[in-house]
Amino acid sequence: VDVVMPCGLVTLLTDFGTADPFAGIMKGVMLGIHPTLRVVDLTHAVPAQQVLAGALLLRSAVSFFPPGTIHVAVVDPGVGSSRAPIVIETEHALLIGPDNGLLSPAAALLRPRSRRRLENVDLFRHPVSRTFHGRDIFAPVAAHLARGVALTEVGPVIGSHTELQIPRARRTGTRLIGEVLHVDGFGNLVTNLDAEELSTFSARPVSVSILGTRVAGPVTAYATVPEGIPLSIIGSWDLLEIAVRNGSAAARFGAGPGTQVTVEELQD
Amino acid sequence: VDVVMPCGLVTLLTDFGTADPFAGIMKGVMLGIHPTLRVVDLTHAVPAQQVLAGALLLRSAVSFFPPGTIHVAVVDPGVGSSRAPIVIETEHALLIGPDNGLLSPAAALLRPRSRRRLENVDLFRHPVSRTFHGRDIFAPVAAHLARGVALTEVGPVIGSHTELQIPRARRTGTRLIGEVLHVDGFGNLVTNLDAEELSTFSARPVSVSILGTRVAGPVTAYATVPEGIPLSIIGSWDLLEIAVRNGSAAARFGAGPGTQVTVEELQD
Amino acid sequence: VDVVMPCGLVTLLTDFGTADPFAGIMKGVMLGIHPTLRVVDLTHAVPAQQVLAGALLLRSAVSFFPPGTIHVAVVDPGVGSSRAPIVIETEHALLIGPDNGLLSPAAALLRPRSRRRLENVDLFRHPVSRTFHGRDIFAPVAAHLARGVALTEVGPVIGSHTELQIPRARRTGTRLIGEVLHVDGFGNLVTNLDAEELSTFSARPVSVSILGTRVAGPVTAYATVPEGIPLSIIGSWDLLEIAVRNGSAAARFGAGPGTQVTVEELQD
Repeated sequence: VDVVMPCGLVTLLTDFGTADPFAGIMKGVMLGIHPTLRVVDLTHAVPAQQVLAGALLLRSAVSFFPPGTIHVAVVDPGVGSSRAPIVIETEHALLIGPDNGLLSPAAALLRPRSRRRLENVDLFRHPVSRTFHGRDIFAPVAAHLARGVALTEVGPVIGSHTELQIPRARRTGTRLIGEVLHVDGFGNLVTNLDAEELSTFSARPVSVSILGTRVAGPVTAYATVPEGIPLSIIGSWDLLEIAVRNGSAAARFGAGPGTQVTVEELQD
Repeated sequence: VDVVMPCGLVTLLTDFGTADPFAGIMKGVMLGIHPTLRVVDLTHAVPAQQVLAGALLLRSAVSFFPPGTIHVAVVDPGVGSSRAPIVIETEHALLIGPDNGLLSPAAALLRPRSRRRLENVDLFRHPVSRTFHGRDIFAPVAAHLARGVALTEVGPVIGSHTELQIPRARRTGTRLIGEVLHVDGFGNLVTNLDAEELSTFSARPVSVSILGTRVAGPVTAYATVPEGIPLSIIGSWDLLEIAVRNGSAAARFGAGPGTQVTVEELQD
Repeated sequence: VDVVMPCGLVTLLTDFGTADPFAGIMKGVMLGIHPTLRVVDLTHAVPAQQVLAGALLLRSAVSFFPPGTIHVAVVDPGVGSSRAPIVIETEHALLIGPDNGLLSPAAALLRPRSRRRLENVDLFRHPVSRTFHGRDIFAPVAAHLARGVALTEVGPVIGSHTELQIPRARRTGTRLIGEVLHVDGFGNLVTNLDAEELSTFSARPVSVSILGTRVAGPVTAYATVPEGIPLSIIGSWDLLEIAVRNGSAAARFGAGPGTQVTVEELQD
């Protein structure tokens, strides 16, 4: 009764790049099934085969789309093996892709309700290749669902989906120790320290450090520091980011995923 | 009475890149407000924080869109500071973005009529972040306007907008001295010498030089010179370009924005 | 009577890149003519001026789009010269672009019926530039056709179009010798050895070699070999590809278009 109604909108997130027409081909397959479907690209530049990076990028985007959006994500090193193709129904959206953890952070954010294994071959494109399930399984199933095929038609309910482990921050006394999860296109370092965690961590002002260097902030806007100065800020993902105003923090610190970031209570 | 009626089309121009889903997120926000909105990407590869480059690229595109198009541009090093978010109404289109000069060359081309400061928070996405006004202010206001919200609703009229200074060519006797404004994706050097200026400059044939080297033309087509030969041509922006047939003029001459280009009357 | 009816969908394939707004401008021109047109990007990253690469990428995509799709392709080193702008009608789609061979492999795949030279200037954008026929000829003609203008209106029938020569595999005794046609975004090497040719070549198992190194397979899935191991597989284009699981075969072998690939019958 309380099922998410597809709103006719599909997003795509892949590691296919944009030099080859793979994403365009997925759209061609979908528009052949559902001619008035609207399709939005999230990104096709997930680093090749990096499921964690894809999962974080997907999670960063899904809550900004209208209810009933269908998100198709394909970062799929196991394509052609026994990993299952799945759909996860959440309170806000449907998530479609390989069951390798890619969908799990977004599903957790949107509150999962049920998962199904994609088994109804009537909804696939044929012949189904061994190398391009984005074209042959994920895209056509998404288009059929967007057009009104019932979720119960795609395949049987399964009890769980693969969960991806995202490194969590840990607290030791007056310190909160996190790490860089993702480097965005500006060279900003997105950490696993979220706004809520920081706000409950300390009633005192805090200092933020990366690789032994203290940075400004947390500030409320890039423009509060001069150009070239490293700073920390709660970014658009609601996570603490290390940035350099009008520069690249990744280049400045030689930092990337896994680099430790420390938040410490300031003593009087 | 003579107001531009939005035609349901929004374009996006940003320096966000396409590795992160920022542009997709802006589309998600807009489609949540106006489900049948059409969105066209101009580019998301404006060099980071380079307002002049973004302004020139925006100006190069706006006149090819139908009347009532809403152009959203975000190259915004001052995000979170006091720079105003604005909309400029022109005779042909609406331009939305930060008031840092980014919109001014396009506005001048399309003849500005009025400007307003975006102040009606009912049209924003909440909470409004300090770092991503593209998502929280510019995109939702554009979608509301495209859906039919009156321009008078967005905020109060302001008297002027920030004007960007574009270097102008200067004339000294039989010489017209300009400079490279932009390097396009082929390595063509787009100058500030426009077709009209050239046609009124001299009744005689002219020679075109860059960094002391005379190039062929102005020619009427790339194919009029052999491969690898540098040439000058009135390009698709109606500006003089220095190009190398099937090559990169930027690489050949080591040239870029600011490099001087000289046009001289040929003597008998 | 048996004419392909345009379905309101246009695709774009160019070598324009996505740093400049050229593709967006083509969309603006088309949406000015046909406001509800749907446009899908195949790719704008064809290597500059490389007609063969563009032709192969176009051919790889067209059969996945619904009947009546109009494919606009622009890799056009001869723009402004005497090369003709054409439309090729096939049993499945319309192909629009310069008559330099770019359209011919896709046309052959989709079975050509007729070709016309684009001569009706009423369907062009004016003034027609010498450098950007994508904007001034190909895009507007495509939009008019998608909106319902009859194919007979665009210009006179011509007897043939320029055919591109694609290198073909050759057989010598127990060997089939082909070559790399294309390197995709993962570094996979797409060859000119197609699935049908391989299946008819030998009743025995075969071995596949590149630059003197035998690779695994042909396998049925990447996941059948360990990470980092080179393999051969029938890819999504129905062509034999040399790949490295979770790596780049192009980098591993220093291979690219033209590199020889040999398939040999295994002896007892």
